[in-house]
Amino acid sequence: MALVANTMHIPLRRAWDILREAKIQLPPEECPVQRCYGRIIAEDLVSLRNVPHYNASAMDGYALSSAATAKATPSSPVILDHGCFSRLNTGGALPQPFDAVVMVEDVSLSKDGERLVVGKSVVAGENVRPIGEDVFRGQVIARAGETVTPALASLFATAGLSSISVRPLPKTLFIPTGDEIIPVDEWLTLNEPPAGKVGESNSFLVQGYFSRWGFPVDIASCLPDNPEILADFLLQKADEYDLLLVGAGSAKGEKDYTFSIFEKNGFPLFRWLLMKPGRPASAALLRNAVAVNLPGFPMSNAVILWSIVFPILQLLQRGDFSETSVIPTALGAEATEEIPLLIPCSSSPGKEEWLRLKCVEIDGKKTAYPLPSGASALWSLAEIDAVALLPLESAELPKGTPVSMWTTRRIPWKERILFQGSNDPALERLPSFVRNHGGDLLLRSVGSLAGLAALSRRECHIAAAHLLHAETGEYNTPFIEDLFEKAEEELVRRTVFFREQGFITQRGNPKKILDVHDLTREDVVIINRQRGAGTRVLLDALLCGAGIPQTSLRGYDSLSPTHFESANRVALGFVDVALGIKSVADALGLEFIPVAEEPYELVYRKEFEKLTGMTALLRAVEDAEWRAAVIRMGGYRWAQ
Amino acid sequence: MALVANTMHIPLRRAWDILREAKIQLPPEECPVQRCYGRIIAEDLVSLRNVPHYNASAMDGYALSSAATAKATPSSPVILDHGCFSRLNTGGALPQPFDAVVMVEDVSLSKDGERLVVGKSVVAGENVRPIGEDVFRGQVIARAGETVTPALASLFATAGLSSISVRPLPKTLFIPTGDEIIPVDEWLTLNEPPAGKVGESNSFLVQGYFSRWGFPVDIASCLPDNPEILADFLLQKADEYDLLLVGAGSAKGEKDYTFSIFEKNGFPLFRWLLMKPGRPASAALLRNAVAVNLPGFPMSNAVILWSIVFPILQLLQRGDFSETSVIPTALGAEATEEIPLLIPCSSSPGKEEWLRLKCVEIDGKKTAYPLPSGASALWSLAEIDAVALLPLESAELPKGTPVSMWTTRRIPWKERILFQGSNDPALERLPSFVRNHGGDLLLRSVGSLAGLAALSRRECHIAAAHLLHAETGEYNTPFIEDLFEKAEEELVRRTVFFREQGFITQRGNPKKILDVHDLTREDVVIINRQRGAGTRVLLDALLCGAGIPQTSLRGYDSLSPTHFESANRVALGFVDVALGIKSVADALGLEFIPVAEEPYELVYRKEFEKLTGMTALLRAVEDAEWRAAVIRMGGYRWAQ
Repeated sequence: MALVANTMHIPLRRAWDILREAKIQLPPEECPVQRCYGRIIAEDLVSLRNVPHYNASAMDGYALSSAATAKATPSSPVILDHGCFSRLNTGGALPQPFDAVVMVEDVSLSKDGERLVVGKSVVAGENVRPIGEDVFRGQVIARAGETVTPALASLFATAGLSSISVRPLPKTLFIPTGDEIIPVDEWLTLNEPPAGKVGESNSFLVQGYFSRWGFPVDIASCLPDNPEILADFLLQKADEYDLLLVGAGSAKGEKDYTFSIFEKNGFPLFRWLLMKPGRPASAALLRNAVAVNLPGFPMSNAVILWSIVFPILQLLQRGDFSETSVIPTALGAEATEEIPLLIPCSSSPGKEEWLRLKCVEIDGKKTAYPLPSGASALWSLAEIDAVALLPLESAELPKGTPVSMWTTRRIPWKERILFQGSNDPALERLPSFVRNHGGDLLLRSVGSLAGLAALSRRECHIAAAHLLHAETGEYNTPFIEDLFEKAEEELVRRTVFFREQGFITQRGNPKKILDVHDLTREDVVIINRQRGAGTRVLLDALLCGAGIPQTSLRGYDSLSPTHFESANRVALGFVDVALGIKSVADALGLEFIPVAEEPYELVYRKEFEKLTGMTALLRAVEDAEWRAAVIRMGGYRWAQ
Repeated sequence: MALVANTMHIPLRRAWDILREAKIQLPPEECPVQRCYGRIIAEDLVSLRNVPHYNASAMDGYALSSAATAKATPSSPVILDHGCFSRLNTGGALPQPFDAVVMVEDVSLSKDGERLVVGKSVVAGENVRPIGEDVFRGQVIARAGETVTPALASLFATAGLSSISVRPLPKTLFIPTGDEIIPVDEWLTLNEPPAGKVGESNSFLVQGYFSRWGFPVDIASCLPDNPEILADFLLQKADEYDLLLVGAGSAKGEKDYTFSIFEKNGFPLFRWLLMKPGRPASAALLRNAVAVNLPGFPMSNAVILWSIVFPILQLLQRGDFSETSVIPTALGAEATEEIPLLIPCSSSPGKEEWLRLKCVEIDGKKTAYPLPSGASALWSLAEIDAVALLPLESAELPKGTPVSMWTTRRIPWKERILFQGSNDPALERLPSFVRNHGGDLLLRSVGSLAGLAALSRRECHIAAAHLLHAETGEYNTPFIEDLFEKAEEELVRRTVFFREQGFITQRGNPKKILDVHDLTREDVVIINRQRGAGTRVLLDALLCGAGIPQTSLRGYDSLSPTHFESANRVALGFVDVALGIKSVADALGLEFIPVAEEPYELVYRKEFEKLTGMTALLRAVEDAEWRAAVIRMGGYRWAQ
């Protein structure tokens, strides 16, 4: 069956309406009380028993007739003969014809145990937990819609309920597809996976989220890119499962035949969302099941899990969901907060756009910045503090724009500090050590100059720079004096280490790069760093000193944000040479031609020194373990 | 081994110190990546692979050499011959010697597929996701102490980690004991459980909390009260498990032999806590395991799970825990809030005391009131909104005292209203219907007069009364005029139904109670209701009308808070007669001798009418389903 109108290229909320209208709710099911913890109760439950189900002593004491104790006092006790009392432990059953319990503390028993001396009068029912005191037979003990807590599960068993009616747990099957996909068990055994093939890893996202949500999911074996095989498989499984998730491979491009299968064999619901990432999602009714086509890139896969699959699970289980809370619930969000952006951000108008964000508090104000947004970036998906879904109409969001976001973890606001500045692999190892010292360090590699500028605008706690001033030969000072005009701003500057900069080339230096003059050769292509990066400033100083114009270098305008990426381009043969530090050349097994040793200087405001995160950072840079790791990387020398 | 000094009758924090000093942390363990979701990472993890591990096309397009496209523009395209380009899907591997990808949109292929017309120049690396772009080999991808999220699990698999080092999941065994305990499977098959025996239900609490915490637990078969059998079993299991929980029966009284076993066979840690409930807990080291004696009453069991067992699990798993967050985490608390008490509350000084609380917002102010506090009350444990642990020195807490509490569920502050007033079984069925209409109704049976008084003090949203004014024969009005002096307070009064009041006696009316005069007989004992209850007011009016002094009734001063409890005392033979309503007599199969038909009137402030909860309540009392259920109960007649 073909799609009806207004079901292609639609906003998320339209997709929700379509899914709601499909009326896919499953009927309630019976669940044995032994396994009911965490389930949602489908109908009000009444106790089948009185609790307690007999008159129970509330104390260790003696059962007796209250009337017999009417006149008992400590000074003129009543003496009861054998047969007129009975020893009871707490919880023991009150025997007929007794109607009260007197505490052991208020009586004494004769030596032969035949007579009880009672020094206190009790009324009928005293120290007795009568039948039904806690719960009576027929009492409503839980209501439809509640989730079974540990106490409720225990109460149900006590109340004699051997099973309860609960909302169903939909049965889901995830089916990875794609010729380029290697099953994960095989993937993990490979030393060098073949190019063009990728390990099946979306099942981990699916299993993880389903586990977090408390829904079961089965994972099918990976299917090849063969529409007939997939169609047969889907139709067979549509009778067995309530929800079928077809995982597209990451390399499918536009060859999406899954939707054709939906059209041919079922009732298609929608196709393509006005959403980035997540656009290629589609859904259909297939026999008794709902089928969803999940995009293959991890971030696309994740956003469709949050925004389409979780709402479908709610519809199957409860018949409805809340539009305001369904996504934060799916995300396991700690809170919804409106937090201003630390940096500007642009969004594609006409599409809802997902942002992955890191959060930090500076000067007592919360702020957030987006992580790289590629749909394929698994790393930034793993790193997120918060997620935002920018509305269709969003375009340019200037710095400071408040964005409503869902925080997906407890953010260590008070322990966290933000570093912006020069990229360095040794520094990238520091956060673990900062954490060991009780802090939390975020690193943003923006280059030396941008880092100092951010510090001057109070947009980070600490920066690092290695900016060579060509005219004076001095590092950093002229730039800092330029940015921090006011004398009252007390800065702390601290050189942590010196590091070797040099030309990084393929192993064996095939192009025979010996000094800066070789960079001008016709057969040499370089990769440069972004404007304001200390390494670029160094290159410019070298060129200036040698009287070489920048324009005479091939590749001067092609940029990379980190030492590692620059060196990687060399390793891949995309370029011939990059200026960068020795540790990275060593790590990638490349050639290194030394050019300069430069100081790597941390810069921060003295007033931040008392922050938990800063204290931890200052301890971490003294940490012998970190220092040993840095020395092993090569090309570093301690400043002190 | 005997206990050392200061380890008996100790406050909770001392017990925590003792446990901490015992140094019980377990070593990390390896976990296959397929099962690592939710586990806590034990050491920093580095990627074993570059991600991507090959140069991947980021687009559907054609791989080519960027140099060849240097001069291409849409108006003067470059034409590449066969062999100088290669079709690639997104994710496809860039073949040697190509260094860039041009998008399909920017090219056209000749009909014979032999030539590619390129209308755009690309630079080296364009539209290519280079090796290691997302994650590079050796990069730290997760840090010790983090919990594995779905994205991290997926990332680990992609990064080639077949297993990771994680903090261990301690192995726990719960061992119910007690001759009076019936295993739950048997308990659920019994129609009439024997008096003095109780079903094993604490394993549901244990399993529920362990499941919530993400820790495994095994449940042993129930053991009899036999120290030798228990000792043998514990010593055998101490090598197999990390934590042994011995569940005491509910009827053990002071006959606690478990601790003797601890002393004889292990290293005892502490015994008896200055805590109510939860006092009888004790702990010891037993071979390789930690052993804890869990009290048998459900509430005592639960508080020891929260305050002792969960901290021990943290120590076993992580070596430490946070004193401020360990209990709220164990409780699964939504938040910690300081909320004033709605009613006064007394606590035992010298003991930390656990309060179970219900919460409601009145006039925009949050407030909380304690539920019944008996250690045996499973019902109030299941009903809690919040839990507080009052400090050792707490004694009398007047109304309004702010108490720091952990809320254990999301409280529907905006939908919730509080009823205080006359007890009625039909009203007790109303909350489910209020919930169906979008509200949330809390019921507090305090009697007619106390309900009206609470309403006048703005301590509830709605009250209900059936107070007969003996002098005028009028219902409620004189009492309301007395309480609500100011004319500006606009009250709404609404009689919902009339209900039959009468004398409730044993079936067959063995004492031949015919009218109020019979209550004065020597052989007749009554049960009365609390001061201010409408039913007591009715009894007083009957006595007054007949000229009978209250003092001539046996049992006039013995009180019960609800119709059900009064009738239950009759059913149990504790008393001969209670004044109460027909529906309760019917429900318990008792005799009912009609005395009066009275109006049951809801009273609320008009200003509350707009509240979500009140709107829902007003709809619920019109709900045909509720009305049908009420009529089936017997003794009710609708007012309209």
